[in-house]
Amino acid sequence: MDAIQHGWFSEIQNELWPGQSFSLKVKTVLHKEKSKFQDILIIDTETYGRCLILDGIIQCTTRDEFSYQEMISFIPLCSHPNPEKVLIVGGGDGGVAREVAKHPKVKEIHQVEIDDRVVDLSKKFLPEMARGFDSPKLKLVIGDGFKYMKDHKDEFDVIITDSSDPIGPAESLFKESYYGLMKTALRVGGIVCSQGGSFWLDPSHVKEVMTGCRVHFPNVSYAVTSIPSYPCGHIGFVVGCLDQKLNLNTPKQLFSSKEIDEMDLKYYSSSIHTASFNLPRWVHKYFYESQ
Amino acid sequence: MDAIQHGWFSEIQNELWPGQSFSLKVKTVLHKEKSKFQDILIIDTETYGRCLILDGIIQCTTRDEFSYQEMISFIPLCSHPNPEKVLIVGGGDGGVAREVAKHPKVKEIHQVEIDDRVVDLSKKFLPEMARGFDSPKLKLVIGDGFKYMKDHKDEFDVIITDSSDPIGPAESLFKESYYGLMKTALRVGGIVCSQGGSFWLDPSHVKEVMTGCRVHFPNVSYAVTSIPSYPCGHIGFVVGCLDQKLNLNTPKQLFSSKEIDEMDLKYYSSSIHTASFNLPRWVHKYFYESQ
Repeated sequence: MDAIQHGWFSEIQNELWPGQSFSLKVKTVLHKEKSKFQDILIIDTETYGRCLILDGIIQCTTRDEFSYQEMISFIPLCSHPNPEKVLIVGGGDGGVAREVAKHPKVKEIHQVEIDDRVVDLSKKFLPEMARGFDSPKLKLVIGDGFKYMKDHKDEFDVIITDSSDPIGPAESLFKESYYGLMKTALRVGGIVCSQGGSFWLDPSHVKEVMTGCRVHFPNVSYAVTSIPSYPCGHIGFVVGCLDQKLNLNTPKQLFSSKEIDEMDLKYYSSSIHTASFNLPRWVHKYFYESQ
Repeated sequence: MDAIQHGWFSEIQNELWPGQSFSLKVKTVLHKEKSKFQDILIIDTETYGRCLILDGIIQCTTRDEFSYQEMISFIPLCSHPNPEKVLIVGGGDGGVAREVAKHPKVKEIHQVEIDDRVVDLSKKFLPEMARGFDSPKLKLVIGDGFKYMKDHKDEFDVIITDSSDPIGPAESLFKESYYGLMKTALRVGGIVCSQGGSFWLDPSHVKEVMTGCRVHFPNVSYAVTSIPSYPCGHIGFVVGCLDQKLNLNTPKQLFSSKEIDEMDLKYYSSSIHTASFNLPRWVHKYFYESQ
């Protein structure tokens, strides 16, 4: 079926979430184009604000994007004792750059996004996210994250992979070889954090990604955030760390409520950092206790 | 639009979740009727198992119901040092009774459900939930929870209200007067726990319910569980306690992983009990720090 019917946008049916579908009521279609890499659709919705859709899948809405952007950024940043230099792979809407730039210890951010059209259209239609591109800490490169990491060895304290789902252009970002490459680009004590899918949707895929990560990182964990515009209303992050002894669920950098509010963090806090690693019993067993 | 179109069931549009809609692919319609209180629909779905729908709204699916049933039961039970006698209001599918009966300290369960057709149909079509009705600890009454509590003063350690949403027959179960009535039916140190809606959907409604609860209970908190078949993929619980000093987020009864597995708990654990009270920063501020 068409993505928009009778004034409602519905996510395309695909193998990632068979048998279920989420729809948003559309106010206006703001933009539609086919870039070199993907179909881009930007709509204004009745109750979720503006919404970026790539290849028929919701990437973010202005109503709830902060949950994802803050958590994928602050979980690895606050798990690291001194995250001075950060690499973002993907993140073309600018929201992750916006969050990473807030962390007081971050001095330098490199971001590699493959599709310049996502960046340009976000600047035009999603300025609240795209203001991340204005940070003086940021160096934005349009190009291939794989190549960039090959050219930048032993450089970063934290690498954040803000990708779309593992079908289409982002598929390779969930593979074991990608984790191997990230390892080479990290400094001693480095941490990686990637969009890691949903344990409700496909726990075996999450586990496979974690297993791929464990080939290169001795310390791997999975945290989750609540976000209604993603399938099943949540999304997880696979976090890998070179330091075996580091307790990822305990933030090294603790922020007071006042500091959290001054950084305009709406979702992240030091206590939700820890809580986000607590998984339902069956998920914990499946990820950590079974082969 | 009709609830089922082109083989997909979509939740009715209503004021509770304007502008968004969740749909499930239907395998078979198992049963459809209008009871004295509500429209009842039971379907078998492609990927969520069997699904009970009341007045067009999904109540539970066999794929994810355990998340809700375990958490609404074990959060208040484990917050109480000795939950011997429990009242369940609603819960016509039997799932909450199934969970409450597992707790080793529970000796006696009273359940008051208004609609006998939900009970009968759950026994026929949802046996995995309805087996809760087989517990020798349970006394099931078809009737009005309000009246039952008026007739049973100072009796219960825990009262669990497993209701549908605050439109239609369950509306009165979210009101301040209902909390007043529950207080009269509780013993010293008693705890109440009710389905409390979603902070993403309508934080002002959740806050209003909490404020109503605070009129009668000095100690009120809100916990959340992840459940993909509910709007926004989660649902909260309003927990009220007569003991001001009791820390609701710290379970009094700690279970080992072995005990959790022996009780066949798939979602609840002592650590997720605590984590479920941790809210995103903006929700915490809005519920606990603002007037």
